[in-house]
Amino acid sequence: MLAQRFPWDGTNMPRYKLTIEYDGTPYAGWQRQENGHTVQAAIEQAIGKFCGEDVTLGAAGRTDAGVHALAQVAHVDLTKDWGAAKVRDALNAHLVMADERVVILNVERVPDSFDARFSATARHYLYRIVNRRPPIAIEMNRAWWVSKPLDVEAMHAAAQRLLGKHDFTTFRASQCQAKSPVKTLDRLDVTRNGELVEIRASARSFLHNQVRSLAGSLMEVGVGRWTGDDLVAALEARDRAACGQVAPPYGLYLIGVDYELVQCSPSSSSGLSRGFTTRAIS
Amino acid sequence: MLAQRFPWDGTNMPRYKLTIEYDGTPYAGWQRQENGHTVQAAIEQAIGKFCGEDVTLGAAGRTDAGVHALAQVAHVDLTKDWGAAKVRDALNAHLVMADERVVILNVERVPDSFDARFSATARHYLYRIVNRRPPIAIEMNRAWWVSKPLDVEAMHAAAQRLLGKHDFTTFRASQCQAKSPVKTLDRLDVTRNGELVEIRASARSFLHNQVRSLAGSLMEVGVGRWTGDDLVAALEARDRAACGQVAPPYGLYLIGVDYELVQCSPSSSSGLSRGFTTRAIS
Repeated sequence: MLAQRFPWDGTNMPRYKLTIEYDGTPYAGWQRQENGHTVQAAIEQAIGKFCGEDVTLGAAGRTDAGVHALAQVAHVDLTKDWGAAKVRDALNAHLVMADERVVILNVERVPDSFDARFSATARHYLYRIVNRRPPIAIEMNRAWWVSKPLDVEAMHAAAQRLLGKHDFTTFRASQCQAKSPVKTLDRLDVTRNGELVEIRASARSFLHNQVRSLAGSLMEVGVGRWTGDDLVAALEARDRAACGQVAPPYGLYLIGVDYELVQCSPSSSSGLSRGFTTRAIS
Repeated sequence: MLAQRFPWDGTNMPRYKLTIEYDGTPYAGWQRQENGHTVQAAIEQAIGKFCGEDVTLGAAGRTDAGVHALAQVAHVDLTKDWGAAKVRDALNAHLVMADERVVILNVERVPDSFDARFSATARHYLYRIVNRRPPIAIEMNRAWWVSKPLDVEAMHAAAQRLLGKHDFTTFRASQCQAKSPVKTLDRLDVTRNGELVEIRASARSFLHNQVRSLAGSLMEVGVGRWTGDDLVAALEARDRAACGQVAPPYGLYLIGVDYELVQCSPSSSSGLSRGFTTRAIS
């Protein structure tokens, strides 16, 4: 569909949007690095095996080591105009052969103006907590085990006070490279389904470790060590030292990225803006 | 509660019922064996570390290598009358320290007549299939990936024709040690929730590999290679060679065991029969 709407005119390399699922456990995060295997490197190697090209992927979110994705989004330019389904199936075949825990869920042709990172209008994260006395076995590396009972209503109520535009310095990793600590948090919901407590966070963009910092601080509220006022005071302190525990990476999932395609391509028949979502769980 | 209803009178060793969750991936199945680490051995070792006793567990289902449990049930006799919560927490501490993927969800004092295997009145299994074109990453070792579209309605309709008392020789492993191949299948439901196809099977007891054999044969129906009539013909052949593919172990979960406690204990104040269920998912 998109391939038809945005035909490759032969002057630029065709751009592909990849939607990616991965188990972050065996990886040193998304971003390629000297030490340690990464998700980005796994996919770039699969692309190299598929078409012999040495590419660099751009991604919506540079997830940390141990963090998972149900729908990470990346873009890549290839020299040849492969069909999207062919790219998906070939990359998956190479990823399976290499015993990677990375899967390409979907491939689309997109206009050159599409950038997985800069075109994103919203990012959606899920943080999973198993809240029960016994430790976890099946959910090991898939959720954070919290043994003390969590008051989910108190967590949710406190979370609502963090919505909107704030200086989130308190909830930002010291190594965060964002120019500004001011972000607009659009959603921070806390719900319970039996033993499973889920925190859903949405924003145009997040600071480094922001969701894990929020999840850990909400845990402090849930076990009763913090009140909602304490959470707001931590925000207002604009001081990393005021943050609660940073929740571990293995409970965190990047579950979707939204894009608004405006003026998709000069050759496109429609100049209408169109919103679409790559979201595994809403 | 049970400890009060079934007090240890000092003449017999107190018996404990353990409800157990495990990720079967790293284990050579439930049953202790010379070669390979097993779930039974992991728990028996934890008991040894806890109280120095050399015990043998009896279990409701001897799951194969790679098969998971959300609520396996076992019983064990200890020489000392520990509190049930103490047993649970101590075993979990030792299991975590040993880096096992096994957790004790619950411990109850039960009467000497309770036998995890022979007192069971029903066993409940879940078989999970992820049905989509791309391979699986997050669900690796947790579900069977089937890429061809499954007709779940056809699978469910065919499955209903296997309910009741039958000679299940077709769906029985050659090494099965059961005296009779005749079993009564009480439930075989196939449902879909998005990409996830779930098969739920319940019976008083199952033959070795019966659920995996049924799941694999239902897959043949789902992809259209078999009709419902073919499935019934396979059953009626009473021939292992007539079975479809045996579904892989990592999609299978023992999710619950039911018990009926009749005449719980001579010292119990009530002789009424009481059914209770240890079931993680219904």
